[in-house]
Amino acid sequence: MPLTTPGPTLGVVGGGQLGRMLAEAAAPLGVEVVVSDPTPDAPASPVARDQVVGDFDDEETVRELAERSDYLTFEIELADPDLLERVSEETGTPVHPDPDTLRTIEDKLVQKRRLADAGVPVPAFRAVDSADELRAACEELGYPAMLKARMGGYDGRGNVPIESPDDVEAAFAEIVDAAQGGSQDDPAGVAMVEEMVDFERELAVMGCQGAVEHGDGDERSPERDTFPVTETVHREEILRETVSPARADDAVRERARDVARDVLDVMQGRGVYGIELFETADGEILLNEIAPRPHNSGHWTIEGCHTSQFEQHVRAVTGRPLGDTGRRAPTVSANVLGGGDGRRQATLHGEESIFETPRAHLHWYGKREVYRLRKMGHVTLVGEDDADPSDLLSAVGSVRDDLSFE
Amino acid sequence: MPLTTPGPTLGVVGGGQLGRMLAEAAAPLGVEVVVSDPTPDAPASPVARDQVVGDFDDEETVRELAERSDYLTFEIELADPDLLERVSEETGTPVHPDPDTLRTIEDKLVQKRRLADAGVPVPAFRAVDSADELRAACEELGYPAMLKARMGGYDGRGNVPIESPDDVEAAFAEIVDAAQGGSQDDPAGVAMVEEMVDFERELAVMGCQGAVEHGDGDERSPERDTFPVTETVHREEILRETVSPARADDAVRERARDVARDVLDVMQGRGVYGIELFETADGEILLNEIAPRPHNSGHWTIEGCHTSQFEQHVRAVTGRPLGDTGRRAPTVSANVLGGGDGRRQATLHGEESIFETPRAHLHWYGKREVYRLRKMGHVTLVGEDDADPSDLLSAVGSVRDDLSFE
Repeated sequence: MPLTTPGPTLGVVGGGQLGRMLAEAAAPLGVEVVVSDPTPDAPASPVARDQVVGDFDDEETVRELAERSDYLTFEIELADPDLLERVSEETGTPVHPDPDTLRTIEDKLVQKRRLADAGVPVPAFRAVDSADELRAACEELGYPAMLKARMGGYDGRGNVPIESPDDVEAAFAEIVDAAQGGSQDDPAGVAMVEEMVDFERELAVMGCQGAVEHGDGDERSPERDTFPVTETVHREEILRETVSPARADDAVRERARDVARDVLDVMQGRGVYGIELFETADGEILLNEIAPRPHNSGHWTIEGCHTSQFEQHVRAVTGRPLGDTGRRAPTVSANVLGGGDGRRQATLHGEESIFETPRAHLHWYGKREVYRLRKMGHVTLVGEDDADPSDLLSAVGSVRDDLSFE
Repeated sequence: MPLTTPGPTLGVVGGGQLGRMLAEAAAPLGVEVVVSDPTPDAPASPVARDQVVGDFDDEETVRELAERSDYLTFEIELADPDLLERVSEETGTPVHPDPDTLRTIEDKLVQKRRLADAGVPVPAFRAVDSADELRAACEELGYPAMLKARMGGYDGRGNVPIESPDDVEAAFAEIVDAAQGGSQDDPAGVAMVEEMVDFERELAVMGCQGAVEHGDGDERSPERDTFPVTETVHREEILRETVSPARADDAVRERARDVARDVLDVMQGRGVYGIELFETADGEILLNEIAPRPHNSGHWTIEGCHTSQFEQHVRAVTGRPLGDTGRRAPTVSANVLGGGDGRRQATLHGEESIFETPRAHLHWYGKREVYRLRKMGHVTLVGEDDADPSDLLSAVGSVRDDLSFE
């Protein structure tokens, strides 16, 4: 496509850290970014061309975003697939990935069913529409099990572990309560339960799908690729660190990429996908969850790969060829999470530890307020070609531990 | 220093491609950028927090910039050192590098004298205040020689080669005419002449000086470093390509870094400096010119080094420790220069060639209009660890040759 100034504009529903890093990656390519977000001066705002202030599912906001854009995408699952589809049709602005993919993914039960039907290995799961159904499912799947809200959960929110039959009633009431805003009237369709996977390790693969626009109509060449397998370390169900290469056997890593490719076969539309996996004790791979957007497990690709997940998403959505997903060097990352009590003005102390560490890179998200476990930034550490991933992980953890919000 | 949101603001006089790449590098560090530039919606504008519209030497513009900033810097030598100094004193906003360094550098005669006095090897030069003085100097230095305007020249503008005594009168008149806006009344102080160096190769070194602020007063630890030596290829006196590692002997590269360190000894103040050098046929290094700012010869560091020249400048100016200047892999870059006739709306054709080349990276500057030899963007190509720099150079040249503005 010919490139002009102002170049193609990418409208992004959501202006958090993912929108910010998309805007950072888009600028060198001559792609301008406009975001929509309910919080004025959202994290992406200072580096984007502009922000439309409004809710993710507000029709007027999304229409204004579409009218100002040549391509529409989203960085948050709270985007409304029906609204995106309607606005895209009305304005003629294409949206990627396909809203139908978002629809599939946003309901964890639909997601799991679609993937299981396609032969992707997933943990055993059941839909549960009452406490009795939950109890019956747990007897079948065994204790402990994981009760999940079908819609809206992230970073562990919406997940409740069930250790024994005694937990069933309270866990089900909690999930319904959260989903129905305090009511227990309509428990059907709210929850699913999964076997608790006794995993050896958690892995993630960023998958990407592109389709090159040749600028002469809708002739398109489909493309598909995966980034190198990442090991992810969670605590309290929140991602803390990533390690690449993952400390798994070559065969396990190859299996993880195979599963990721099978997942992409089910997903419609261009963009990058965060594919979270379990590696079981016997080296099998099970799919955990999918995000149809850049993902925390891929932040290390900014310094660690020839093309970052953010540049890749911009390339894919705007119809450019995908970039080289090769890893440049062993690379780890650590999230900078909020600590302390309450919601308050964010002030990070100890940043000199990052700047004093050779090959450590700060990515600050520009959030004005901090609260416990809020994702405020991340630190990436790039190693020598022969660096031991465990040593790197311990080094980046020690830099991160020097940071505080007190 | 504690980091908050909004973080420290860096005010940059000049909003061209250097300001744009400074803003791209500043965002992950939590540093916000405001630029000043006479052209509304200048290249840096869409990725910066804001732009103050006004001339580089307009007092009100620079004062507004300083008032909105925690640190002041410049990306163009047209900044006025006296004005920067005065505004910095009045507003209390520190400016880096020191305006006195800009004052030394902006007058090429003062620059050369200061460096020669400090023992830096420079081509033989003379101040020439009349055509007669120019003729006498050329007899002494030998033909050909290079007549230079002392102030305001860049990208070959302000340089006139003198091949023989027949050229002297016209060359001197041309330089005075350009400097005095069409008058020949006041030729003193306008020009200098240098021996024409018969170089084997042109080299460049990005030098950097920092001083860590500890946040408890003005206690500072000085730091100094140099990036790896770059080979630069010029045609029509405009930089076309860069090659790193430079295709010179190890001993020559070491000598180039030594000269760069000697140059830094003369420069006052934090920031990065573009230090352009000649390598003579017998492997000696002579200083050509200095720019007290990020420089075209250092653009390859964005992908090619652990810290880019832009991040390094932001770190230095805002009082953070300098980053690792190590090279990650052999890396070349090629400028995308305007072609064709006249000044017109810029439309780049052939960009798919960049996106289809693995490990090639586009940096588009977002200029709305193109004219012949205008710097519109650059392409960087990263090689394997054992890549031959000549092969890389030929590969990036071939990608660049696929681009056009027709």
